[in-house]
Amino acid sequence: MIEPFDDTFFMKRALQEAETAFEKNEIPIGAVIVVNNQIIARAHNLTETLNDVTAHAEMQAITAAANFLGGKYLIDCTLYVTIEPCQMCAGALFWSQISRIVYGARDEKRGCINLNTQLHPKTNMIGGILSEECSQLLKRFFIEKRNLN
Amino acid sequence: MIEPFDDTFFMKRALQEAETAFEKNEIPIGAVIVVNNQIIARAHNLTETLNDVTAHAEMQAITAAANFLGGKYLIDCTLYVTIEPCQMCAGALFWSQISRIVYGARDEKRGCINLNTQLHPKTNMIGGILSEECSQLLKRFFIEKRNLN
Repeated sequence: MIEPFDDTFFMKRALQEAETAFEKNEIPIGAVIVVNNQIIARAHNLTETLNDVTAHAEMQAITAAANFLGGKYLIDCTLYVTIEPCQMCAGALFWSQISRIVYGARDEKRGCINLNTQLHPKTNMIGGILSEECSQLLKRFFIEKRNLN
Repeated sequence: MIEPFDDTFFMKRALQEAETAFEKNEIPIGAVIVVNNQIIARAHNLTETLNDVTAHAEMQAITAAANFLGGKYLIDCTLYVTIEPCQMCAGALFWSQISRIVYGARDEKRGCINLNTQLHPKTNMIGGILSEECSQLLKRFFIEKRNLN
């Protein structure tokens, strides 16, 4: 059976990115950016590897997608990200004027919803796609970390 | 007379960066990061040149300072930036745990103060250093832009 191109399909690709981050001992968050059912950017959190707090999956994906498109505005693009964006990433997404944000699991503490980060009026955001898988991966990471220390 | 190392001294360096951005036809905002009176990062807005909404002066300065320090937390560092940081940059500064933020002019519309972006509890922010020079440079840029179009 051919998998249709729906939000679950692309969130699975973001989850694969998150798993790659996990294998690198990075907080496992992944993202892809899609336009016309084509993935134009894939990225995962690399803050430890790059020693850089700005190296969140979404930030790298925004830069990569703009590079692919040859323009800085992500019109008609959808970002899929396994965890709700933080205020830095939501702030970057504001500037990008991205059309759609789809996140997996909520981040009640550091996420843009509870912190009231302003999104662009052209941007729609939905959440809860593969929420359980996205949050379980994160929980497993922190449990393994704790057991090692 | 030797100029002392005070906030005005370092804001002048940030203004030099902003002037460099102006010459490149970039919105003229500049930043430097300082630790122990030493400038460890200099950057200016490059969003047009790099076709990348994330290429604000502060973001590049954070990455460069972390690279210089060999660690991602900007403890004991001060960021000087000519205009109040936006929510993306303030969000990045949150993650960096920077000790101090000094901005020149306010940004009432897109700045982190009116948008209530959360700063790290370890971070102190002050503003108004060379405010007039910082905002005049920005105003001159937009007037020249308008006259060209």
